[in-house]
Amino acid sequence: MMMDYVAEILQGTPLAVSRVITWLENEDERARVLMKEIYSHTGNAYILGITGSPGTGKSTLTDGVTWQLRNKGQTVGIVAVDPSSPFTGGALLGDRIRMTRHSEDSGVFMRSMATRGYLGGLAQFTRGAVKVLDASGKNYVIIETVGVGQDEVDVMRVADTTCVVLVPGLGDVIQSMKAGIMEIADIYVINKCDRPGADQLFAEVRYRVDQDASIKDRTWVPPVVRTVAVEGKGEDDLIEAIDAHRTYLEQSGKLLEKRRERTREETLQMIHHELFRIIRARLAENSRIEHMVAAIMDHSMSPYNVVEEVVSEWLPSL
Amino acid sequence: MMMDYVAEILQGTPLAVSRVITWLENEDERARVLMKEIYSHTGNAYILGITGSPGTGKSTLTDGVTWQLRNKGQTVGIVAVDPSSPFTGGALLGDRIRMTRHSEDSGVFMRSMATRGYLGGLAQFTRGAVKVLDASGKNYVIIETVGVGQDEVDVMRVADTTCVVLVPGLGDVIQSMKAGIMEIADIYVINKCDRPGADQLFAEVRYRVDQDASIKDRTWVPPVVRTVAVEGKGEDDLIEAIDAHRTYLEQSGKLLEKRRERTREETLQMIHHELFRIIRARLAENSRIEHMVAAIMDHSMSPYNVVEEVVSEWLPSL
Repeated sequence: MMMDYVAEILQGTPLAVSRVITWLENEDERARVLMKEIYSHTGNAYILGITGSPGTGKSTLTDGVTWQLRNKGQTVGIVAVDPSSPFTGGALLGDRIRMTRHSEDSGVFMRSMATRGYLGGLAQFTRGAVKVLDASGKNYVIIETVGVGQDEVDVMRVADTTCVVLVPGLGDVIQSMKAGIMEIADIYVINKCDRPGADQLFAEVRYRVDQDASIKDRTWVPPVVRTVAVEGKGEDDLIEAIDAHRTYLEQSGKLLEKRRERTREETLQMIHHELFRIIRARLAENSRIEHMVAAIMDHSMSPYNVVEEVVSEWLPSL
Repeated sequence: MMMDYVAEILQGTPLAVSRVITWLENEDERARVLMKEIYSHTGNAYILGITGSPGTGKSTLTDGVTWQLRNKGQTVGIVAVDPSSPFTGGALLGDRIRMTRHSEDSGVFMRSMATRGYLGGLAQFTRGAVKVLDASGKNYVIIETVGVGQDEVDVMRVADTTCVVLVPGLGDVIQSMKAGIMEIADIYVINKCDRPGADQLFAEVRYRVDQDASIKDRTWVPPVVRTVAVEGKGEDDLIEAIDAHRTYLEQSGKLLEKRRERTREETLQMIHHELFRIIRARLAENSRIEHMVAAIMDHSMSPYNVVEEVVSEWLPSL
């Protein structure tokens, strides 16, 4: 039965892809088994990241990029990572009508994922979903995320090319550009550039990019692309910039380097995730964690002692 | 020598407090040793969180709240958590001139911290800094953070009372309120409420709060306080709201419940954090991780196999 799923994923059957991503989200044991089987079929898709604050029109841009890629005969998988309450774990996309023009197109698969838990799990799930789409034969996988927090930066590390979307009038450009954006942006997109302030924003971003490039002696200077996504304007320029970045990465050997670094990070994170999962489960047995909390609350133990005790019990020095 | 630090922290010597927080930031071994010593002296401070997007005037509000608390004879520690590049780890506050009216006041200690690493470390460091300030005898500790991403939500879970700051005209209120804010806000502050749109924003927030309260049958309905922080207007209302929330938590037993849950979460996170430190160090020995990455890259192993291998080696089933 599991082998049927493997075959169906490799054939790109949407229902199977969808189900396996759900397993990933639920940390279902079957996901683990399946991921091992399909792993050797990954590494072929090119991974795009599209990130920006709420209201920048990321979804419309993702839609436009997808459209352009489809016109070039490429298949596309989309993972939209949405923020949601860490308390309820619920997604917010239920009410969102989008991707309508692709809904009948078997060359496009779209899936939205909610933020879950609070232990760096977001990037973990995203990586899994990207791999499933990659193995399913999609030529491009687009990761779309809201915002520029630490989680989003982690998610973007999964992408080969990251597009950061800005719009005039949100007023937090300098803040955002300080907050780690310049490290992850391969391409800047000024969307809604029919709005007042677009030229100024363009000049500002251009100036900062040039400054940053000269300081860091970068070999790739991120282009700044202007779009009006709702009218489809600038989509072709964006695709051109993406192609140029891809060519740059491939020819300079940096794509391989980037993917090696990513694999290293992914592996460390997976080991960490799995060890913690097991230890958390063990601590739940016999209410051991509750006893620890009680001891910490009445100051008979410090959490630092508890950590030492747990670590030395389960991971004694080799 | 370490005991001198313990004594100085407990006496509230600013230089010692400052140095220990730096140790925490750098994951200096001395921080671990010291934290164990001071832990039993924590739990006395009341912890306030003040969060909001860039440009909402959080810093000015923090300043105002500090001023009010000082006038009531309370001492205050402030931890300002700023976003910064995950790659450079640098803080952005160097250029920021603030808290000038408290700079000569020994009853106030202010420290800014940068975002570091990418494994939920932000909340980890914040918790540590809060504990140091708590042990140093401050009656109140204020945590000030930018934005409402997952990191900030995690940081805010450290607070007893969380104030969410909104301003008219930023236009992302509904987005923000969806993105987990309603779960963490104990008090809403409409700052810059001399600006156009303030009444509308007030009404909007009020409406959503009431709706949310009726759905969830909450016993605490977050008040919406209006301020003009630069003029000091509304500061007293805010303090009153904070006092009311504190009284509510104390009398309902929810403060204890909240702190128990927090201790549980903190302990698990500390274990999580410590595990990663150990894993990374062990796998770096003999370039083991590099061999793994090479095997994964040439598809002779999947990362899932690697994880299984490491986990069964380190955590054999009991």
